[in-house]
Amino acid sequence: MILQAQPLSKERFSPFGDVIETLGAEHYPINAGSIERFHDLCKIDAEDGGRVMVSIVKCNQPSVLPYKIEVVERHSLGSQAFIPLGSARMVIVVGPPNETVQLDRLQAFVSDGRQGINYRPGVWHMPLIAFSAGLEFIVVDRGGADLDCDEVRIDDAELFVDCEQINIPSEGDT
Amino acid sequence: MILQAQPLSKERFSPFGDVIETLGAEHYPINAGSIERFHDLCKIDAEDGGRVMVSIVKCNQPSVLPYKIEVVERHSLGSQAFIPLGSARMVIVVGPPNETVQLDRLQAFVSDGRQGINYRPGVWHMPLIAFSAGLEFIVVDRGGADLDCDEVRIDDAELFVDCEQINIPSEGDT
Repeated sequence: MILQAQPLSKERFSPFGDVIETLGAEHYPINAGSIERFHDLCKIDAEDGGRVMVSIVKCNQPSVLPYKIEVVERHSLGSQAFIPLGSARMVIVVGPPNETVQLDRLQAFVSDGRQGINYRPGVWHMPLIAFSAGLEFIVVDRGGADLDCDEVRIDDAELFVDCEQINIPSEGDT
Repeated sequence: MILQAQPLSKERFSPFGDVIETLGAEHYPINAGSIERFHDLCKIDAEDGGRVMVSIVKCNQPSVLPYKIEVVERHSLGSQAFIPLGSARMVIVVGPPNETVQLDRLQAFVSDGRQGINYRPGVWHMPLIAFSAGLEFIVVDRGGADLDCDEVRIDDAELFVDCEQINIPSEGDT
């Protein structure tokens, strides 16, 4: 099966979390008008005594499309946000936060290169892939004593994600 | 008085908070080695029932150097992080988290364009300035019912910050 990525938007992504972008966000001037603040763009969760961490992730090995999805995972106690530092399109695969992964309910999205995303706690998702070595993303997620990650290997299905209209690898090179 | 900005480093900035950068950070591979995670780069605080917010700020009106510092502020209950989306040098002015601002203890730093910073709660700082319209920064700070901001106007001193070695406006244009 091949999941085709559809353009990411706040509306389409709302069952899974937030799109982090200035478009459509509440905003107001600060610092004597020199700066505009696009305010409070996602809901950060760090339950059960967790704390919020800020990390950077960097692409070592670029992925290519179509991409075979071998693993999906979820974090039940915390949200997880990814925001590109610079321009980097993301291909995102998500499923509803049910107890088990339902392969037939997975959906794929492609970002516009500037958009970030924030997975709500419990949302199943494909681990981050990127399309050019060196691309960096800010991650905002939960830290805690416990390892809050359930991983499910997809062995019994040939499941791919693709993005027909967009030549991702060349976009990533810019 | 003119404060000269010195290059930002974790060591120099440690009395005031964190430098958010991959350099010198704990890191390890994730996602089958395709991605490297530079882990937990700053300490996020949101005390007194606050929550952690992610926002984007965007430069409406570029500042020029030398820049007259008219206001410093602090947030007593929460940390505040700024991370450039893309390359954007920051000129930062900070003072120790004492009850009052001590002008003679302010220090100025200049980032390398990729570095982010995180002010510890209570650290006095100049509000964000940027050197090119449209530059964007991720902000991670505290939200809550109360307005957690003390602002002090600097009326009785001609206090400027400058950065001698670096032509900031032209760097910001790239």
